[in-house]
Amino acid sequence: MQPVNTGLEGVVAAETRLSHVDGLAGELIIGGFPLEELVLNASFEEVTYLLWHDRLPTNRELDTFKAQLKSHRALPDIILNVLQAAAAKQLPTMDALRMGASALSLLVDDINDPEETALTAVAAFPSIVAAYHRYAQGQNPIAPHPDLDHAANYLYMITGQEPEPEQTRALQTYLNTVSDHGLNASTFTARVIISTQSDMISAITGAIGALKGPLHGGAPGPALDMVFEIGKPENAEPVIREMLERGDRLMGFGHRVYKVRDPRADVLKTAAERFFPEGDEFYALVQYVEQVALDLLEEYKPGRRLQTNVEFYTALVLHGIGLPTDLFSPTFAVGRVGGWTAHAREQLAHGRLIRPASNYTGERERKWVAIEQR
Amino acid sequence: MQPVNTGLEGVVAAETRLSHVDGLAGELIIGGFPLEELVLNASFEEVTYLLWHDRLPTNRELDTFKAQLKSHRALPDIILNVLQAAAAKQLPTMDALRMGASALSLLVDDINDPEETALTAVAAFPSIVAAYHRYAQGQNPIAPHPDLDHAANYLYMITGQEPEPEQTRALQTYLNTVSDHGLNASTFTARVIISTQSDMISAITGAIGALKGPLHGGAPGPALDMVFEIGKPENAEPVIREMLERGDRLMGFGHRVYKVRDPRADVLKTAAERFFPEGDEFYALVQYVEQVALDLLEEYKPGRRLQTNVEFYTALVLHGIGLPTDLFSPTFAVGRVGGWTAHAREQLAHGRLIRPASNYTGERERKWVAIEQR
Repeated sequence: MQPVNTGLEGVVAAETRLSHVDGLAGELIIGGFPLEELVLNASFEEVTYLLWHDRLPTNRELDTFKAQLKSHRALPDIILNVLQAAAAKQLPTMDALRMGASALSLLVDDINDPEETALTAVAAFPSIVAAYHRYAQGQNPIAPHPDLDHAANYLYMITGQEPEPEQTRALQTYLNTVSDHGLNASTFTARVIISTQSDMISAITGAIGALKGPLHGGAPGPALDMVFEIGKPENAEPVIREMLERGDRLMGFGHRVYKVRDPRADVLKTAAERFFPEGDEFYALVQYVEQVALDLLEEYKPGRRLQTNVEFYTALVLHGIGLPTDLFSPTFAVGRVGGWTAHAREQLAHGRLIRPASNYTGERERKWVAIEQR
Repeated sequence: MQPVNTGLEGVVAAETRLSHVDGLAGELIIGGFPLEELVLNASFEEVTYLLWHDRLPTNRELDTFKAQLKSHRALPDIILNVLQAAAAKQLPTMDALRMGASALSLLVDDINDPEETALTAVAAFPSIVAAYHRYAQGQNPIAPHPDLDHAANYLYMITGQEPEPEQTRALQTYLNTVSDHGLNASTFTARVIISTQSDMISAITGAIGALKGPLHGGAPGPALDMVFEIGKPENAEPVIREMLERGDRLMGFGHRVYKVRDPRADVLKTAAERFFPEGDEFYALVQYVEQVALDLLEEYKPGRRLQTNVEFYTALVLHGIGLPTDLFSPTFAVGRVGGWTAHAREQLAHGRLIRPASNYTGERERKWVAIEQR
């Protein structure tokens, strides 16, 4: 029997031009750009275009692409009804997104057209998340705003207010930062699904299911909960020390892949610095809590070099923009769907059926026994 | 860089007690039983119980299990409405099943209870498929029949008629035969999704998407189309010879995994022999076409040892039972969901996050260029 590798760690399952995660060097490349070179400058539409076409769009191409996305934003009543039913049951937002996304087959003319299905998915994710969120709050959904671009319109559909430019900029930086990240579990899910020559809607629906898991995208909320619990600087050390004494894991620190630093954390830290006004009390508290946590982690787990991870600064940026915690994972999906669709297209173009092996550990020669004799 | 294995062929991604595919020996073990020992004898409920609990149920346990499944069959109006909308657009049945399955979150009390979610999925799949099929035919769905077991009730919900015992027996043999098959792409999808500690509904929804692909479960229909096209024995040789001359692939022959024989084909052949009355004209034609195809394959592709595969006998059995071609793939899903849920439970209990690596083939040092300069 072959040795088993249950996590497939180190097994190369695809070649991709989309992104490169170098955990040892602490580097992330997206679409040929070092992360920090791209995500603070680009709009979400530009990054998605880059992932799909391997270059940045010209002015005219970008206008066309934005118009295409705008024309795929609206949701039909049947999807809104599903979201309303989900809200009546107060389902997790990721479940509602998975239900809405799976129903996007209803919106496409040709389920096997990778271009149309990808456009529909990217354009409709914000509409699904925002509509569900409003239903869950007992409010009615807000129709997309025809003058607003992707990120700004997402915030608008959630709040009903046109966002400030710095909110939109911070959100775009976040969405761009999480737009792609190698063969993470959700992206890999999308590739496995479409490797059977299935369709893009099936691929992104499966990917949402994977992203929902707390070991993947389902845990950005708790990172900031610790800060809320701490409340004021003088509580930071006793609270964190007690957590570490109890053996609790500190959410927001450490990452399986990045051993040195998480470049996404760095770039979101920059986004936060640009977003929060100087002297902002909450921002100061977060920075203080981070430093205390890092100091205590070094004290309790010396040599482990646990760094602030992307979840911590995600929570900071998204909270700063005004998004409630239950929208963190769905907003991750709103960004990552750019990468999922790009990977699915790449898999369709170059991949083959993904079908690993398993080792059998069960019995082999059981004999049928009539039910009366069992 | 590590070598890339885009299909993950031969990479062992899990240990499982659920099934064992030995392609070289042409053997398949399900739940400790050689395939032929189990599937011709057992009810679908017994096989599903076996997969979940690693033993056959006692009489009392089986009664309880059947009652539990019956109590999870009914679909709420909102899911029926979604299926109706899908039917209005004449979507592929697999899309409708994926949409309905994703919405099963609405039916469970605790989305993180693997037992309740698995029961709901297994019980509701036939209801979703049958309801969609009837809507697509311009008919209303039929409520589940409280006195009928799983397989019989599935046929009842499709036709409105209580099936003959031999139809039910043939369907159960089919469902059992496809209930599990190692780490095929859909089962692997379910395991990847739930490896993030996501939920069972997410896992089986993703799996449906993978099964939909023509390289996986999406191609059982065409196998019989060739027989229909051939129509009468004397056409068999010229039609198949022309296909092979053109370089067409003969659907229903050859399998990536099984090199010697496909044990599922053998057992479904037995099921067909038991099902079709002696002297049945259609059955005689199918047998004749199979023999001609095998002879000509040996002539045109000598030494390739292409054998009749499971799709061929699937089509024969399902057509014999009276199912239309568009229900073949969804009926595959109705059987395979037993395996998906069992694998998902096994992955939850013993697995870890599945996250393979990728090799990066893109550029590395692109510089940001303002849009006016592109």
